[in-house]
This record gives sequence, C-alpha cells and structure tokens, in this order.
Amino acid sequence: MKIGWIGTGVMGFSMAGHLIDGGHDIYVFNRTKEKAEGLLARGAIWCDSPFDVAFSTDILFTIIGLPSDVEEVYFGEKGILSSRPACSIVVDMTTTRPGLSRAISRKAVELGLESLDAPVSGGDIGARDASLAIMVGGKESVFNEVVPIFRLMGKNIFYMGGPGAGQHTKMCNQILVAGTMIGVCESLIYAAGLGLDREAVIEVIGKGAASSWSINNLGPRIVRGEYDTGFFVEHFIKDMGIALEEASAAGVSLPGLALVQQLYVAVKAQGHGRSGTQALYLALKALSEKS
Amino acid sequence: MKIGWIGTGVMGFSMAGHLIDGGHDIYVFNRTKEKAEGLLARGAIWCDSPFDVAFSTDILFTIIGLPSDVEEVYFGEKGILSSRPACSIVVDMTTTRPGLSRAISRKAVELGLESLDAPVSGGDIGARDASLAIMVGGKESVFNEVVPIFRLMGKNIFYMGGPGAGQHTKMCNQILVAGTMIGVCESLIYAAGLGLDREAVIEVIGKGAASSWSINNLGPRIVRGEYDTGFFVEHFIKDMGIALEEASAAGVSLPGLALVQQLYVAVKAQGHGRSGTQALYLALKALSEKS
Repeated sequence: MKIGWIGTGVMGFSMAGHLIDGGHDIYVFNRTKEKAEGLLARGAIWCDSPFDVAFSTDILFTIIGLPSDVEEVYFGEKGILSSRPACSIVVDMTTTRPGLSRAISRKAVELGLESLDAPVSGGDIGARDASLAIMVGGKESVFNEVVPIFRLMGKNIFYMGGPGAGQHTKMCNQILVAGTMIGVCESLIYAAGLGLDREAVIEVIGKGAASSWSINNLGPRIVRGEYDTGFFVEHFIKDMGIALEEASAAGVSLPGLALVQQLYVAVKAQGHGRSGTQALYLALKALSEKS
Repeated sequence: MKIGWIGTGVMGFSMAGHLIDGGHDIYVFNRTKEKAEGLLARGAIWCDSPFDVAFSTDILFTIIGLPSDVEEVYFGEKGILSSRPACSIVVDMTTTRPGLSRAISRKAVELGLESLDAPVSGGDIGARDASLAIMVGGKESVFNEVVPIFRLMGKNIFYMGGPGAGQHTKMCNQILVAGTMIGVCESLIYAAGLGLDREAVIEVIGKGAASSWSINNLGPRIVRGEYDTGFFVEHFIKDMGIALEEASAAGVSLPGLALVQQLYVAVKAQGHGRSGTQALYLALKALSEKS
C-alpha cells in the first residue's frame, strides 16, 4: 500500500521504519528534511509538501509537535486538506487538542475522506520496539480498516469512540501520569529530607499497593540524578494544558492536575524544558532549599 | 517462644494467627476482648493489661489504631513500659509518628530492653496471606534477631535504619499512594466527564508508563461504584497528617500531599471516613456537580 508519513522525529522515524519493514511504499515529508534521510536511504520517497504526500498515497499518517504544527500541516497552504487529496484516510497520531481532531474529521468528511485520531503512549522505546499503545477515535469501520497498519507500530490498540476520543483517552493517561509523578517525587524528596536511603525506599514501596511504572522506572533515575532522558517536560506541560482546558470546558475540576502542571511550569522555568518528566523532583527540591 | 501480641483488629488478628501456626505461645491483649476470642479459641492466652503481656513474654508486638493509642499502650498506667517488663524486645507495627517510635526506643533503652518500629503495607489481604511488606527501624542486630518472626507474617522485609526509619519509609509509601490516587481519580473523572468508557480507559492506560497498582485494582472498584472496602479514608488522613508534620519539621515542602490530604478531609466530611481510599473519586465528583 502507498502510505504517507509526515513527521520523522524521535517517534515518527521509528514508526515509519516499521511500515517500510512491513513492505509498504512510504512517501514522506518532514519540516527538516535531514531527519528523514535515514528513511529515504531505505527506499522512502520524498515529497515537497504535506499536500504532495496526500496526493501520492492511499492513507496518510502524521505525528508532529504542537497543535499549531498539526493545524499548519492539515489546514495550511499546501496542507493535507488544502484541497481534495488522493488518499482516502488521514490518521493523526500526534497528542493534540481533541477539538482539533474533530475539526480535522469535519474537514475530511467535507472533502469525502475519513480520519482517525490515534495518539500513542510508550515513548521512544515503544516506538522503536513497535510496542506502543495506540488510542483511537473516529469511525469504528475506519479503525478496523487501519488496524493492520497500527499492528506494525503497536501492541495495545484500542478503539475508544468517535472523533477526539483517542485524544481524550491520551489525556486520561497524562492526568494519571501527572498524579503518579507528584507522588513519586514527593515520596523521594521526603526520603532524602528524612535521611533514608532512597534506593532502599524504592525497593520497598515499589512492590505493593504503592507500586507504579513511574516509581520503578523513573525513581532510580532520580536517585542517580539522571534527568536528561525521558518524555520532555515541555511536551508534558502542553499535554496537561490541553487536559485542563478540555476539563474546564466540560465543567470538570482537576485540582491535582492544575497543581502538578504549575510545578512543571516551574521545572521549565528552571531550564529543564527538555529534561525528562522526572525533573519534577528538581522543582520540589528547589522549594525546600535555602535561597 | 513466648510472644506477646497487643491489637487484634483486622490486621493484628491475622498476623497473630500466623504466629500461632508457627508454633509459638501467644499472650494477647486487646481493648475489646471479643475481637481476640478467635485467637483464644486457638490456644492464645489472655492477659488483662499491656504490662501483663510484657511481663509474661520474651518479645512483644503491637499493632493498634492511632498514635494516641500507641502512647497509652506503651506509656500509660499498666502500659508496656510503665515499669521494667520481662520481655527483651518490643516491636510496634502500627503506622504512627516516627517521633513516637523514637520515644519508645529511648524509654526501652532506659529500661534495658530493645525496640523496633515495623509498620507494614499490604492491607488485610497481605495480613491474611502473610505477604505483608514490613519496613523496620531500630538496631540492625535486633532486626536480625526478629526477622524469623517477621517472616511468619510478611514476604518483603526491609531494614531501613535507626529508630523511626521504618515509620519514615511507611510515610514514603503513603505519600506515593496519595499522588497515585489523585491521578487515578482525576483521570477517571475526566473520562466520565468527557464521555469515555471508563473500563476501556483503565484497560488502555493501566498497561504502559501510566500503570500502577492503584489504577488496576482500585480503578475498577470506582467504575463499579464500590467504595466500602479498602484502606479506611480516616486512617489515610491520619497517615498523611503525620507525613506532612514530619516533612514540615524537616523543612520539606510537599504541596501535592497537602492538597490530596485536604481533599480526603472533604471525603471524610461527606461521610466516607470508613470508606476505602478510592472514595477520593466522590470528593472530586462533588466538586464538579451542580449544587
């Protein structure tokens, strides 16, 4: 199948690679062409604009940065939906505003094609190992059609409801991560402040009713002072911002998320926008240090 | 060995039972004698006061309610340490103030005996299955002496440091649970408010980087509206209060824990002091409902 791919960053590069391995013809566009070179070397075909991709393929995937980038790629000049493309399905795998997913869906229908929102979780490792969780919104019949391609990129693939439902599910994931992370970081800052061996603490509390992926995987990074790798703080702030906006619009109060998001704003202000989410520990540390 | 046991509530009753199964002679006291009957029927010997227990045994365990109860049992009239007892080691397994554990330790030393603080996690199920995590503070040599008895009650047994270190470790556990629970409940209240199937959401987000014991075990209870069982809200409020006090005294700021504790105060005010901790969902629900 002729598959379009827009966005060859850390996630998209690995994901598109799996489609090449799956025997598909890949047509690719990225704002920075250099980041697509590795795919071109493996036979992917370069296109000069998002619309060119849409015009050359049967189905098209996007995974890019901010909601504003998604808007540009879909609705801008030479955007995917700037006029009627050749492809019959567009799938946005970016974590973005559910309202934007619905806008893409409406415009797609207008032009006679179908769309899905399909954000992922699992990070760079999940992208590389093709073990991503993929949360999908849109028409179920379209979902069923695309599932074989999703299977090349992910393991846990879920249909969650109409347009935007994939994004809302990703927001649930991020809200859960936010709470867990404040628990992880406050627990370890308490341990440090009260003179406990933090490695031993993680070993104890990481097993029972307090256990989580975060305490067992990010806790040890905090103990070792490793803040460079992981999901970027600035991306997490964006996601939490979307969740707070959506929740507010729906009349849902999320006091915990609001607090955590503000603490992450502090983490970014301290110069850690491109650190991993475990850098929340540093903001809490700064709170309790003499200045 | 002649072992004393004070406190035959949900936890203590099961734990003392394992010691009987282990072939030990158990001397028991509880404020409400009826709750000890099942142990007496299995051969445990009743004592009329905490001091009587201490006077009849080689080593003594306590697991009771509030810090004030612990104070009464150790320091009150006919308390364990009201004069020199026969036993050579006292072990408090209650989750209590680390300062109280240190006070017990000082008084014990004064009277020529040893003490450990050894709070547990794992709940009623862990107590029943003898699979508790046990976090121990005190002298390491004393810990090593008591380990064979701990092994009858728990699986993950950890020496954490001097007097109070067991309690501090339990506080780390509770701080981590508090954060995780706000994440779980806000995630599911968002899912409900935005029209997602919460069961499906748990299935998706319960597997990857957002996964935790809480989302996978308490999340489904929330979906089913089951708030009756689990760790009592009022006990959790007590524990979080201790952690906040200790942290404050050590100059450690825990904004997330403070918020969660206050939300749990609301849960209790709503009449759910004896519900499970997943009842936090109800306070968040009340926040977003028309009144």
